This record gives sequence, C-alpha cells and structure tokens, in this order.
Amino acid sequence: MCNNTIEYFLQRSIDIAKENCLSLNGGPFGAVIVKNGEIIAECGNSVTTTNDPTAHAEVNAIRMACKKLNTFDLSDCEIYASCEPCPMCLAAIYWARIPTLYYAADKHDAKDAGFDDSFIYEEFDKKEEDRSINIKHIRLNTTSTPFDEWKKMSNKIEY
Amino acid sequence: MCNNTIEYFLQRSIDIAKENCLSLNGGPFGAVIVKNGEIIAECGNSVTTTNDPTAHAEVNAIRMACKKLNTFDLSDCEIYASCEPCPMCLAAIYWARIPTLYYAADKHDAKDAGFDDSFIYEEFDKKEEDRSINIKHIRLNTTSTPFDEWKKMSNKIEY
Repeated sequence: MCNNTIEYFLQRSIDIAKENCLSLNGGPFGAVIVKNGEIIAECGNSVTTTNDPTAHAEVNAIRMACKKLNTFDLSDCEIYASCEPCPMCLAAIYWARIPTLYYAADKHDAKDAGFDDSFIYEEFDKKEEDRSINIKHIRLNTTSTPFDEWKKMSNKIEY
Repeated sequence: MCNNTIEYFLQRSIDIAKENCLSLNGGPFGAVIVKNGEIIAECGNSVTTTNDPTAHAEVNAIRMACKKLNTFDLSDCEIYASCEPCPMCLAAIYWARIPTLYYAADKHDAKDAGFDDSFIYEEFDKKEEDRSINIKHIRLNTTSTPFDEWKKMSNKIEY
C-alpha cells in the first residue's frame, strides 16, 4: 500500500472527526476500517447521542465492520484513527485482531482538548491500590469456577 | 454496604459467567452493575454470538445500564465482575465513571483458560514500536484539526 493511500484513509478519519463534532453527533474523533484497499466501516464517536460511554469512534467502527463482514476477527483489516486510541479502543483493536493501526493526533492533543485518554493511560501504570477507582479482588469459595466449566466444554466457540 | 451484599453480587456475576458459557452465549465471563443496592444490569460475554469483539460482559453491562438509566455517567453505580476486567473493560469502567469495582478470578486465571487478557496487559507495558500490532503515528498537515473545531464550539456536550 502506497503512502498516498495511507494518507487518504487517515485524512478521511480526520474529516469524519470534524463532521462528527460539528454535527453534534459526539466527540471530535473518527475512525476508518479498511480491507483490501476498500473502506468497510467509518464512524465518529457517539457517546453523548447514544448514551454509551463505550461508543468511541474505533469501537463503533469495529462493531460496524464485524457486522458487515459477519465475523469477530478483523485480522485482514487496517484501522485509521484521527487520534491515538485510548486504552479501551487500543485493547478493542487487539481483541478484533486488527494487525495495523495508523493515527494522526496523539493522547497529549486529546488531553489538551479536555479528554481523559492520558489520565486513563496513567492509571494503567499504577498499582491497583493506587488507582482512582476503588478496586477489590475477592476470591469466593465455589465448587467450580466459570473457567473450570469452560475448560471441560467440547462444543465451545473460542475467540 | 455489608460484605454479604458484596459477596452476593459477586456470586451473581460468577453464576452468570457459568450460565453464559454453558448456554453457548459466549465466553465464561459475567458482570453485574448495581445502583443503591439494586441490580441495574447483568450480562455475560457475547463476542461469538453477536460477532462483536467488544461484547465483553462488563462492556455489555455498562451499555445496558446506561440505556436503562438514560445516561453515559454511572458514577453512582458499582460493578461486579466474575474476572478481573481486561484493559478494554477497565478503561470502559473509567469512561463510564464507575467508582467501585469488585472482581473474583484474576487475569492469570483467564490466561490459564486461554484468554488474552494478560497478553494485552503486557502489550500495554511495551513501547509502541515493540508491540505485536504495527502502529504508525502520522501527523498530517491540515488547516485545522478536529480538536481545534471542538475547542471553538459553544454548544458541545462534554463527556
């Protein structure tokens, strides 16, 4: 894939990000998923209009691409994002098995515009007990765990 | 909230995780969101049945709770998870502003059952260029960025 094509898709993610905030659909973020040089999905952030805090541009685009391709595995796709993905979106890219990511702005630009991306990245670097969320690990006594059941199953669909 | 109540909701997340895999709905994970001592949402993982790699139990429960409460802000809720949230779900908990998280199994148990949670946590600790995903930061020359537009807007809904 030549550089012009990469820049074309990255510019498309930026244009979507601008349109997305100016149309009041959500935050100033856009993402594009491409397979074989063709756009499969393109989405803006829709947190505020769908009341879904997980509806970031990258997550929306992954959901749309998977629906379109009828799979939960996007290992033959690339993703282009107007901004460096937050930890939720980066992990979603791993779970979707997308092997290639291009992004334009970075998490410092996002912070400067009032978004918590870099705060959450900093929280990830802290020990559990030092985080702003009150997190408690409680191991209950149970006869079998969900993982015990999973490991015994012969008809499970792995992912 | 007394410990018995915490254990009750945590056990409920474990029961959902077991039912979820045995019914072939998805992976062996469950999550419960509670507000004022009442369960607002409870969900299993549905990655394979909905073809959505982001449909982890915690993300599903956050989306369900937000829909039910008509908000993207769950700062008055707690979340109980059958297993330590993966980075995607942990970041989703931050974005949903949930201040309290209880979990039962941990990421090492998840790894032992074949799930990539700890792999993704390890990837987060690496420099961008050392990660298994090919990541490229390309800053394009544009007259204005999406963040410039966002900062100028007076009618935006912040989140």
